[in-house]
Amino acid sequence: MIGTLDRSSTGTKIEKLQRLMDARGLDAVVVCSYQNVSYFGGTTIITQLSLPDRLAFMVARKDGAASLLVCSIETRQVRTQTDIKDVRDYVEFAQEPTQELTKLLRELGLSRASIGLDARRLSAASMTTLQAEMAGVKIVPVDDELELAQSVKEPGEIETLERSAQRTLAALENGLKQLRPGCTERDVTSAVGAKLMDGGGMPAFMVFASGERTMQAHPESVGTPMPPGTLWRIDFGGRFERGMYSDLARSGVVGKASAEQQATLTALRATQEAGFKAMEPGRPAKEVYFSVRDEFKRQGLPFSMPHVGHGMGIAVHEFPILQPRCDIKLEVGMVLNVEPMTLIADRAEGYHVEDLAAVTPHGARKLTPPQDHLLTIPA
Amino acid sequence: MIGTLDRSSTGTKIEKLQRLMDARGLDAVVVCSYQNVSYFGGTTIITQLSLPDRLAFMVARKDGAASLLVCSIETRQVRTQTDIKDVRDYVEFAQEPTQELTKLLRELGLSRASIGLDARRLSAASMTTLQAEMAGVKIVPVDDELELAQSVKEPGEIETLERSAQRTLAALENGLKQLRPGCTERDVTSAVGAKLMDGGGMPAFMVFASGERTMQAHPESVGTPMPPGTLWRIDFGGRFERGMYSDLARSGVVGKASAEQQATLTALRATQEAGFKAMEPGRPAKEVYFSVRDEFKRQGLPFSMPHVGHGMGIAVHEFPILQPRCDIKLEVGMVLNVEPMTLIADRAEGYHVEDLAAVTPHGARKLTPPQDHLLTIPA
Repeated sequence: MIGTLDRSSTGTKIEKLQRLMDARGLDAVVVCSYQNVSYFGGTTIITQLSLPDRLAFMVARKDGAASLLVCSIETRQVRTQTDIKDVRDYVEFAQEPTQELTKLLRELGLSRASIGLDARRLSAASMTTLQAEMAGVKIVPVDDELELAQSVKEPGEIETLERSAQRTLAALENGLKQLRPGCTERDVTSAVGAKLMDGGGMPAFMVFASGERTMQAHPESVGTPMPPGTLWRIDFGGRFERGMYSDLARSGVVGKASAEQQATLTALRATQEAGFKAMEPGRPAKEVYFSVRDEFKRQGLPFSMPHVGHGMGIAVHEFPILQPRCDIKLEVGMVLNVEPMTLIADRAEGYHVEDLAAVTPHGARKLTPPQDHLLTIPA
Repeated sequence: MIGTLDRSSTGTKIEKLQRLMDARGLDAVVVCSYQNVSYFGGTTIITQLSLPDRLAFMVARKDGAASLLVCSIETRQVRTQTDIKDVRDYVEFAQEPTQELTKLLRELGLSRASIGLDARRLSAASMTTLQAEMAGVKIVPVDDELELAQSVKEPGEIETLERSAQRTLAALENGLKQLRPGCTERDVTSAVGAKLMDGGGMPAFMVFASGERTMQAHPESVGTPMPPGTLWRIDFGGRFERGMYSDLARSGVVGKASAEQQATLTALRATQEAGFKAMEPGRPAKEVYFSVRDEFKRQGLPFSMPHVGHGMGIAVHEFPILQPRCDIKLEVGMVLNVEPMTLIADRAEGYHVEDLAAVTPHGARKLTPPQDHLLTIPA
């Protein structure tokens, strides 16, 4: 599904951790999340997504040496992916993974170390074990720094994200072509999902709803036909090569759009365009948020979004988040989804558009062409 | 995708929490995981799976009163699903979710309470906040008890799991029919995944590999044709109605199986059958493990599995796990996957079969017909 991996060496990524250790006075960094183990460890253990008790850890030290500790069921695959030589494993149910981590840390001479870790991902249970077994260790949460280290994409990563975004848009266009009058919401998700898989993506989330349920953020699709004139909204994405995600939203109607419906889409697109325009290197992410919000006001559209977009990579939401408190300055090589949504209460309609763009020295380069017209499915 | 929800009331599930509170002397239970919020809270917030910082909490008290605290983006949908009346929300990025939880706990008079929680799912960061803000609270991890409370399925849930399992098997059979000679691993995952979506499932994991990569547990599919005679292995599942999963594994060949290959499958099936046979109410889960392991020995097959199966529901692996230390006694209404796998090193082949069965008063009732012959795709 995900394709042969063509990862860059973990070397440059471990250097990022070394700079973090220097900056924060740490002896080591330990990461446990799917996102961080994938990114810094160069291995994609998909059971980290579906089996939350099957823990995996990566330990990096100041000198750049790194170790992985994974479940023995995964070892064979991990060795084919990572270029980290020191891969340890534990036997599930026979050995407790966090206990094995404490043994590894002791063996690596880190019994009295300052260790940075992803405290928003590590479980409270694992933290309790670490504290009980390693009283001499100083634990420092470094979640934000780990996120930030992933925000500027490496060579090849933008190309992968661009290709994945375009395949996702193509999956939507080709899926819609297969629909017939009287189709249901589930017919749409099946058709589009199948095309996504044809394009090499593993569906990761698939929100499609029509009518008043377009007002919900992540409604579940139903199996009843959609009447002509009904507004619909899709927000979906897949996991592609290198474990990288796509995330795309479009709005449309069943049959022909009314002038009023198209006008709302046009206004919403103007707010998205204001976001792209603000995506200049050096500007803080929050300014993109404010630009979109201000354009909502100019367009007379209802606005109630806590954020209007987000970075993306091997997680669906990554730093920077386009939200009013995010001071992260945009840099060339960041890749951002801009996704304004508006709820028109009196018509019970929710409109949503979402496209990916890369920050370049000259501002945003859109990786998918945004929609200027409401899409349509046969009435 | 997931279909209109037809959940049973949360009432009987909150009663389970009340019994847990009684047994452990707790004033309240707080759960945060996707699995636990879905099960006990009666709402499926799919972003809990893809956006790990978008926290959701359910609080249940001794008198059966319950509250939900969710991100405001999800509120509208949550209210359409749950029958819990007290739904609170926080604004993402403006309010810190765990801080909002501490405010809610204080408002509910739980400032000095004994609170059970899912400590293997709560983040270390959230735990730190809880401890700092609510020094008077006694925190008691109750992960295992919460898992156990979900192991016997409610009326309707077994039917949903059975239907989902059968649709998953049908997706495989119908997907394989569409393949042509010279197809690649990715052609298989696309074809089968599309059929899974046609059947109402959202693909959750999709492992398909051929040749020596069948020796890996969760390899990534590739886009090169598979030579005749090659062994392949698929292990996949989807999310269906009520948020319930399927999980099915099959082995097959490209073209015609050799007698040796079929003999290995037959021997492996005997070990699976030994597992089903041991699935009697009252017997501890570990005895199923030992029965399968002993049959491996009788069949002369290499055995190296830390577990040979698992419960399933709104998580892919649930209690009981068929592993050598699991003392949970099987009960009528439990639903278990039995999935022996064997690695034949000298042929570099990994064989795997997996089917779902329910524990009944008379032993296992298989919910899908296991395979007696290696499947085939056109050479």
